[in-house]
Amino acid sequence: MADEQLRGQCPLAIGPTLAHAARLQRDRAYRDAHRQFFVEGVRNFVAAVDHGHTVDALLYSERLLTAPLARKLVRQLKRAGAPFARLTPEQFRSISRAERAAGVAAVLRQRIGPLANVAPGTWPCWVALSQVRAPGNLGTLVRTAAAVGAAGFILLGNGVDPFDPAVVRASMGALFGQTFVRASLAELRRWASQHQLMVVGASPDGALDYDQLRYPHPSLLVLGEERSGLTAEERALCHQLVRIPMVAGTDSLNLGVAGSLLMYAVARDPGE
Amino acid sequence: MADEQLRGQCPLAIGPTLAHAARLQRDRAYRDAHRQFFVEGVRNFVAAVDHGHTVDALLYSERLLTAPLARKLVRQLKRAGAPFARLTPEQFRSISRAERAAGVAAVLRQRIGPLANVAPGTWPCWVALSQVRAPGNLGTLVRTAAAVGAAGFILLGNGVDPFDPAVVRASMGALFGQTFVRASLAELRRWASQHQLMVVGASPDGALDYDQLRYPHPSLLVLGEERSGLTAEERALCHQLVRIPMVAGTDSLNLGVAGSLLMYAVARDPGE
Repeated sequence: MADEQLRGQCPLAIGPTLAHAARLQRDRAYRDAHRQFFVEGVRNFVAAVDHGHTVDALLYSERLLTAPLARKLVRQLKRAGAPFARLTPEQFRSISRAERAAGVAAVLRQRIGPLANVAPGTWPCWVALSQVRAPGNLGTLVRTAAAVGAAGFILLGNGVDPFDPAVVRASMGALFGQTFVRASLAELRRWASQHQLMVVGASPDGALDYDQLRYPHPSLLVLGEERSGLTAEERALCHQLVRIPMVAGTDSLNLGVAGSLLMYAVARDPGE
Repeated sequence: MADEQLRGQCPLAIGPTLAHAARLQRDRAYRDAHRQFFVEGVRNFVAAVDHGHTVDALLYSERLLTAPLARKLVRQLKRAGAPFARLTPEQFRSISRAERAAGVAAVLRQRIGPLANVAPGTWPCWVALSQVRAPGNLGTLVRTAAAVGAAGFILLGNGVDPFDPAVVRASMGALFGQTFVRASLAELRRWASQHQLMVVGASPDGALDYDQLRYPHPSLLVLGEERSGLTAEERALCHQLVRIPMVAGTDSLNLGVAGSLLMYAVARDPGE
């Protein structure tokens, strides 16, 4: 019986679990309907568990998974009653998008709520955005946000999915420590005004260089889409538009880079 | 006859040209043996021509190519005698890796030389690196380098290929305005010492925060590989090791972001 417990109490049917994991990766509507998402890799898995995320399903391959810390976490989760599927390396690879399948993955509950009850806190900044062309860029922004101790991301409307596998992958585990909320532009305006936040947008025609502004903590950074930039409504929300200086003849930076430069400018400011 | 000239003088055989273009994209040894590389997309194509790169073969699809500036450049190049292949949309798509094939591509001559005769100039910085795990990160660095007016990249050893299609794509045309040289670490040491350049490496155990240093122009920035960082030999080359501050519990930034933060710190310094 004790031995049985170590092996786990809640085995899942392999076929349906694999199908579910695969579809969670490729189908956003399916992700949203189930309020779940898929993560793989030791770094993401360990970070998710460390930050107390709910594991709805644990998928692993004994043969592939060699990292001792991840193996220990798998044992603990199974003992604690997490539903699990023990896979062959071939089965695991069939759902893995990693170059080298690490042998551990999980189906997690999406953590994203409304803005109204969120306190701005004393973090250096919040980041708001409505569209991202390349999901990897959002993942890069999330990684930098964690590095500067940002609070999290306010997703305007329904255009951005932080649970896209490409976002999760590029965030390198940083996703799980950031807060994600979804709001309309009107809700964001109310929230920023209620908490007297300075709202700063990045734009090539900004009046001030990004590193010439004093940033109270938290500041609210609004980032535009890679090509089209800020919308007219987003610009109207901003108290300051800042530019990142570039030499003549060049016209853009990678969005992950531009947002990261802003976040570091905010975080390096003593913030009053 | 005049009409004939407008149609171009040097048509290429379609089949071998498509095979050549496809192999240039997927096979680095083949790229290096031919000293050529493949670019596609309006932005890359226009930037390459603007910077006077030699077009060994022009590939286009009349139907797909709608951008007026690129169409004009195609006509000019054909008139000037550039070898060309006029493709059907299907043929063009067979060699395109773009999400939406723009209808213009080119086989270009690689521009990369030895370090010895390169003058450091008065640009803010040079960037040296020996390994990059994700080619897209190098493309991002190249794009930022162009934005800050950096001189170019010194590739240590043979590990990095700036002509990888993923580098070219992520650089968004910025590749063509940057200088690329290849050197050994010993050659770089001699060159830096001869020109009395300050050599700055980025490392988590750096003694100084990256934005607390005064950077003479040009400075020489040495960037390590994504996971393993600077090698012992690279560290020994550096006069200063700087760190990018991160909050406790986080341990890394995207390489494109980290290098971009450094480049902006250098460029924003008046440089004496």
